[in-house]
Amino acid sequence: MDNFADRLIDAIEAKQNPSMVGLDPDYSKLPELVKQNAVESPEAASQAMLDFNKVIIDSVKGIVPAVKLQSAFYEVYGAAGIKSFFESAEYAKSRGLIVVADVKRNDTWNSSRAYSRAYLGKGKPFDAITVNPYLGSDGIKPFIEDGNASGRGIFVLVKTSNPSSGEIQDMQTGSGRVYAVVARLVDAWGKGTEGRHGYQSVGAVVGATYPKDAKMLRKLMPKALFLVPGYGAQGGNAAGVMPCFNRDGFGAVVVSARGIIFASAGDDFGHAAKQAALKMKSDLTGMMRDRNICPW
Amino acid sequence: MDNFADRLIDAIEAKQNPSMVGLDPDYSKLPELVKQNAVESPEAASQAMLDFNKVIIDSVKGIVPAVKLQSAFYEVYGAAGIKSFFESAEYAKSRGLIVVADVKRNDTWNSSRAYSRAYLGKGKPFDAITVNPYLGSDGIKPFIEDGNASGRGIFVLVKTSNPSSGEIQDMQTGSGRVYAVVARLVDAWGKGTEGRHGYQSVGAVVGATYPKDAKMLRKLMPKALFLVPGYGAQGGNAAGVMPCFNRDGFGAVVVSARGIIFASAGDDFGHAAKQAALKMKSDLTGMMRDRNICPW
Repeated sequence: MDNFADRLIDAIEAKQNPSMVGLDPDYSKLPELVKQNAVESPEAASQAMLDFNKVIIDSVKGIVPAVKLQSAFYEVYGAAGIKSFFESAEYAKSRGLIVVADVKRNDTWNSSRAYSRAYLGKGKPFDAITVNPYLGSDGIKPFIEDGNASGRGIFVLVKTSNPSSGEIQDMQTGSGRVYAVVARLVDAWGKGTEGRHGYQSVGAVVGATYPKDAKMLRKLMPKALFLVPGYGAQGGNAAGVMPCFNRDGFGAVVVSARGIIFASAGDDFGHAAKQAALKMKSDLTGMMRDRNICPW
Repeated sequence: MDNFADRLIDAIEAKQNPSMVGLDPDYSKLPELVKQNAVESPEAASQAMLDFNKVIIDSVKGIVPAVKLQSAFYEVYGAAGIKSFFESAEYAKSRGLIVVADVKRNDTWNSSRAYSRAYLGKGKPFDAITVNPYLGSDGIKPFIEDGNASGRGIFVLVKTSNPSSGEIQDMQTGSGRVYAVVARLVDAWGKGTEGRHGYQSVGAVVGATYPKDAKMLRKLMPKALFLVPGYGAQGGNAAGVMPCFNRDGFGAVVVSARGIIFASAGDDFGHAAKQAALKMKSDLTGMMRDRNICPW
């Protein structure tokens, strides 16, 4: 398969849209239309999540290049939820979308190898996964190796979008803040994973909620693709995510979950998701034009 | 249910053994006896892991107070693997063992809440889980709240046992190394979770491979229970884990996985696991007696 970074950038260019929809189907927020059973059994809930995701995917597949599935909302239903997680990913893939497993996994080498095979192994429907850097290189290398072997990528948590992300990530060390230390590791880990567009398949998670940090991180990881959560419901906006892009207008993909998938709680949730996805595209590309970095 | 820290300490005292068996059933290493099908289908592999675990559990249940399941080896088989993960945990629980889900999960608040319910929710067979601190307090709080509500606990990664753990964890900040910053957070998060033995249900993962760091961490988190991986196959030994214990002889539980479960590759793997678990108990308690900290 082609290099992951190339595939993601080609998809962004084809849709003229650097955004991604988060399929985070919190069961308690699903529209009544997809909750076919009154009782929240693991099987019924998992089926409802899959049905919901299919409607969302079909509504946004012409607009966005990629989707991201937050594993937690599926894992809560055990084996049935995992089945729904993989089936949702397969469905998105079958509709031509790039699919990211947002699992934030990490462990020591031996276990990271197993995690890597669970999501980036042969036949798995994911194009990339998110990973946590706290254990350092030997917990990350298996993901990079498996990704390289199959045209897939990883996104390493660098500066996360949540309010308390600074407690550890912002600590000042002799080599800059902790997130800067991680950024340099990401840049090093990405060496050799560049595609023809010049971007690396080892990317970084950089929250939309910390624009000043993003500006510095863009310099520390010039060739990394940024996965940018926190737009919309978490308070990030189009102006705030601009530092995540390079001057070529690439290098970042901005995620919105709740703002798209729960745009309406009624039976029209698919239509509402489509409208919200179009609005996000227009917000982002409008701001990129204002800053003279829109590539299309 | 009783406080988690009390339950773990009572179980350690009852077995007179501060150790834990890691149920990390890497399929490629399973004895031929449990591989009933030549083809490694997810279902066959998952069944083999469950069968294997049952033999191990029955072999060590009289010796160790607790087991820990490494999620990665189950996740690699998707939904079938997750079924095996939960069924193995249920089986261990039914045999009177404390059960830890080694999942190293973490995310922003909303997703951490879902992860928490996936493993510490009502009816789930786990007594505690491992979590990653990189996102700070708001990614950890849901686990603590759910744990408190149901007599369960968490173990936060502080200083991990792997070779590259220092790349981020050992960085020197204005408030000590990164692992010391995390240790102070763990100490703070644990406030209010103390049981009658004085220990907190918010514990720490501290690798057996870094004894000097463990000594400092014991001082920074005097009331935290340490989950100590890295003994045996990873190179940690009985002398090296002693700094993880308090002077009362409690405060730590030492994990061995491969050294116990793969003690024999033959049909006698259950018997060999029992012998290896007894040897580990004898190693640890012998060293505790030498240091005058053996509580029984």
